[in-house]
Amino acid sequence: MHLSEVDTPALLIDLDAFERNLARLPTIVAEKAGNRPPPRLRPHAKTHKSPIIAHLQAAHGAIGQCCQKVGEAEVLVAGGIRDVLVTNQVVAPSKIARLAALARFARIGVCVDDLTNVAALDAACARAGTRLDVYVEVAVGLARCGVAPGPDAVPLARAIDASAHLRFMGLQAYHGTAQHLRTPDERRDAIAKAAEGARATRALIEAAGVACATITGGGTGCHDHETVADLWTELQCGSYIFMDGSYGAIRDGVGGAGLPFEHALFVWTQVMSRVAPERAILDAGHKAVAIESGMPTPVDLPGATCLRCADEHGWLALEGESRRLKLGDKLRLIPAHCDPTVNLHDWYVAVRGDLVEAVWPVAARGAVF
Amino acid sequence: MHLSEVDTPALLIDLDAFERNLARLPTIVAEKAGNRPPPRLRPHAKTHKSPIIAHLQAAHGAIGQCCQKVGEAEVLVAGGIRDVLVTNQVVAPSKIARLAALARFARIGVCVDDLTNVAALDAACARAGTRLDVYVEVAVGLARCGVAPGPDAVPLARAIDASAHLRFMGLQAYHGTAQHLRTPDERRDAIAKAAEGARATRALIEAAGVACATITGGGTGCHDHETVADLWTELQCGSYIFMDGSYGAIRDGVGGAGLPFEHALFVWTQVMSRVAPERAILDAGHKAVAIESGMPTPVDLPGATCLRCADEHGWLALEGESRRLKLGDKLRLIPAHCDPTVNLHDWYVAVRGDLVEAVWPVAARGAVF
Repeated sequence: MHLSEVDTPALLIDLDAFERNLARLPTIVAEKAGNRPPPRLRPHAKTHKSPIIAHLQAAHGAIGQCCQKVGEAEVLVAGGIRDVLVTNQVVAPSKIARLAALARFARIGVCVDDLTNVAALDAACARAGTRLDVYVEVAVGLARCGVAPGPDAVPLARAIDASAHLRFMGLQAYHGTAQHLRTPDERRDAIAKAAEGARATRALIEAAGVACATITGGGTGCHDHETVADLWTELQCGSYIFMDGSYGAIRDGVGGAGLPFEHALFVWTQVMSRVAPERAILDAGHKAVAIESGMPTPVDLPGATCLRCADEHGWLALEGESRRLKLGDKLRLIPAHCDPTVNLHDWYVAVRGDLVEAVWPVAARGAVF
Repeated sequence: MHLSEVDTPALLIDLDAFERNLARLPTIVAEKAGNRPPPRLRPHAKTHKSPIIAHLQAAHGAIGQCCQKVGEAEVLVAGGIRDVLVTNQVVAPSKIARLAALARFARIGVCVDDLTNVAALDAACARAGTRLDVYVEVAVGLARCGVAPGPDAVPLARAIDASAHLRFMGLQAYHGTAQHLRTPDERRDAIAKAAEGARATRALIEAAGVACATITGGGTGCHDHETVADLWTELQCGSYIFMDGSYGAIRDGVGGAGLPFEHALFVWTQVMSRVAPERAILDAGHKAVAIESGMPTPVDLPGATCLRCADEHGWLALEGESRRLKLGDKLRLIPAHCDPTVNLHDWYVAVRGDLVEAVWPVAARGAVF
């Protein structure tokens, strides 16, 4: 099937660009690590929600996956992924029971920032006859979940270590807001500070007699700085496979160009109304492309700008040659944020050049539980 | 099952409030119409995406449904709805063929703003052996799809009327931006201007010898003014069944209170991290509650404000008594915008008081085609 025959709106993967991204991250990380062993890759499945893509990442060296929700972990394990870390707190008793049961079929990790949660996880594993890998989350920059770097992590690590059915693995240390800082210097400084906090926390835990082998975290925007920091043993980059408008707007160190990944995810849309010369209305609104991080960007259409989206309509302002756009013309949009855009769709249409090569389910779409 | 047992995040309907909303709209419209026959109700299914809810609206007098997408119309017809208007242009040949085929099973309407589209619809109906109801869309205030009020609508109406397989029904005239104007005076004036444009357009079409019986449009924010305008023969209100934060922020005429509908749609969430006294992290982020129109509002939690949402996390800032919130506590959020929030979920959990009474599929979730 030719791309031109694919109905709109649809979620496209440009396979050539996607495959270059898949290969490029491990190459960069190995280069930046120099003589040291590079951090292992544990890509974040919240981006793609797809066991097929997780297996392709494994073929490029990924040791497992991360995800945010128990429901995502269940979909990954059902799709054959054998090592999944939920980079999040799981507190509902029903979810803890599901997580403990899932550990029969795969190696399952989870994060904690509360002592009562440690006890609940241990009790659920005792009932299920399983073990969970448990990480203490340290809030290294992003005030969200996790204890502050420093002594608060020590009693948590000791409690996990003392739990019969839990394995204390180390620290979850992700600096989310650093990922999108515009300049490489800002990102480097933010990551250096995050690393300092995580390093000091690890030292306190080890001084208390508990081994702290794994520091997991990291993202697409700071993968280079996180590698150079010589602290993280695992990187959790997710968006590098697809890129998006937000990551496209940040600058890399080399000559000020963008990140070294290519746009590989697009929303395929068409012109559904063309009554005014300066305006085209597209059939993709914010139920087809997430706009919480900004408007999408039209590809290969100089003079066209996406002004706004309603539920099912996108407004393109047209200048210059983009005014040639006709009713029914199809075009690609780069989403401002890939993760929530993927979550709006049931299928990826994977194209090689202009030909459809595969249709992959977004298997964990809507897995908010 | 008690609400407290429902896992989070979940999409809740408060059935008592929902049923009062279902009854209230036809009552208000009948009152405002006075001695005239009131506009018929054709509620918008883009809000609920559910045949079950469409049937409940029919039981309160709705003559049919609207929707935005052919895929939504297919789900409604499959669920037993016999009269569906796609309040939108349908231009892709494959979608036009689906629409013409669907007209075998139900009365199906569609909007146009382009002459070539009229010909394509007629040809598809000829092939399918069906007829479509066709409306000319007039852009009465919202510069989106539709021709300007005035003479541009006349050749379209004539072309539809002259098409062997199409029925010219009248005008689609929806003033979207008027719905959320804050004060009743602003809304009244905007609707009066929209009505003037649609009325003049209808006069031109009728002067050209084409009957223009139906004027369809209208929304939750302006249903009263649209009724009083004595022009619209059908109202397309959607959000009135659920309400949301955006509609909750606008003021009604009577004493400056909000619209006469109650919040009946909530996202059920729980506290997943509680490390700082001034902050609680919820397990509902913008993959569970749409934020393109603003942050959600916590219910019955004085002092709590939702500051931001990430994909799977919501940040609550806590003051005063809301600081009693504990890890694992559950609470309800009012979404800022109901339609895209519904589209993130697969199921409604319908509760009567604190007991679950039904679980309804969001049957047309993701139907962007």
